[in-house]
Amino acid sequence: MQLFFCHTVNGASALLNEEESRHLKVLRKQNGETITCVDGKGQLLQCRIVKMGKDATDLEVLSAELMPSERDYELHLFIAPTKNNERIEWMLEKAVEAGIDSLNLIETEHSEKHRVNLQRLERIAISALKQSGRFYLPAINPLQKLSDVNLDSGFFFAHCAEDDKITLKRFFNHDEPKGKFQILVGPEGDFSASEIQNLKERGGRALSLGNARLRTETAGLYIAMTFSALS
Amino acid sequence: MQLFFCHTVNGASALLNEEESRHLKVLRKQNGETITCVDGKGQLLQCRIVKMGKDATDLEVLSAELMPSERDYELHLFIAPTKNNERIEWMLEKAVEAGIDSLNLIETEHSEKHRVNLQRLERIAISALKQSGRFYLPAINPLQKLSDVNLDSGFFFAHCAEDDKITLKRFFNHDEPKGKFQILVGPEGDFSASEIQNLKERGGRALSLGNARLRTETAGLYIAMTFSALS
Repeated sequence: MQLFFCHTVNGASALLNEEESRHLKVLRKQNGETITCVDGKGQLLQCRIVKMGKDATDLEVLSAELMPSERDYELHLFIAPTKNNERIEWMLEKAVEAGIDSLNLIETEHSEKHRVNLQRLERIAISALKQSGRFYLPAINPLQKLSDVNLDSGFFFAHCAEDDKITLKRFFNHDEPKGKFQILVGPEGDFSASEIQNLKERGGRALSLGNARLRTETAGLYIAMTFSALS
Repeated sequence: MQLFFCHTVNGASALLNEEESRHLKVLRKQNGETITCVDGKGQLLQCRIVKMGKDATDLEVLSAELMPSERDYELHLFIAPTKNNERIEWMLEKAVEAGIDSLNLIETEHSEKHRVNLQRLERIAISALKQSGRFYLPAINPLQKLSDVNLDSGFFFAHCAEDDKITLKRFFNHDEPKGKFQILVGPEGDFSASEIQNLKERGGRALSLGNARLRTETAGLYIAMTFSALS
């Protein structure tokens, strides 16, 4: 089923942005036709095309259904952007397919990347949402210093140094993941020793992702997929 | 630790190929220095550089240690190449990081890609092997028609149509994956109805990878990561 993404839904009217309007045109849709939309907040909408335009398209909402939440857990991933943009971008694409609730970009001592294009990341997330048939778009939060990130006690952080770590499988011990989880992944040069110490003082638990040295973006994806596999 | 990959190990002598020799040069290594190598067959080797060259480098093997197998299971992934080469390439990179034993390229009714560059895939696998610190390089087997693929009874295949499917988690039911697994993933247009029927007749079981529609390459990676997470 071809899905379109509405950035704005306001009662009986909704709006497609420039990119989605271009998409309508490519598919040779006409005014008056009915299309199926998602709003990324759980709504599945049947809409009639009122007025197609180059910059935006007006829609009339014919019906809206709030879809149930897709998971019993909330997964919030905190990750340092990779030097190579492509790596974090495809990680996001796959993480949306596997299911996450937010991607939070963090700046750490060993970070080499200090800017991210949030709009581009959001476009990638929307495209993955539509492709995978999911209804809830993860929030993508701007780059924030690790020390400023708001973390609940009991969060996890994945790092590569020797440490007393737990695997998610052992943590869940045959139960399915339920509740809210915040998981941090370090940058390409890993968290520094003082960051690791500090994260522990803030109530974090060191997480093992297996024996191999995973790239930053592989680690992020591994977490999203492991939650999905265990649930 | 910087690892090099030896394509050829023959008793006390070993050989680096052109690419690895270039890598030595970039790192300003000199004849007489000692380097650490893997052969992709489980050996971790200490080698002395005998003669660096542009096309190849001769090494003397000072010591060799056979590393234990990394997993209790064998995972053989059968997958249709994606239209966009990059997608299968990064899947392979990440699957090597997560751990697989072979990648087998299959040609199906809905396949749109009929050629693959095996050498390029092998280079990507070697690079991921070195990066992740693994010792066993997965075999990468050439494109083969689905009907010609040699499958043991009890293999799994992931497809998107409605079917009576099992998840890996339910299949393992709290046990860790052990033994040999062959898992097939369809092309971007999915397996055809007759292929699905035929795979069942050959003893295959339909596999669920969750509720979302995963891209071909995401599905392949999801399988590799799920095995790793459940083990």
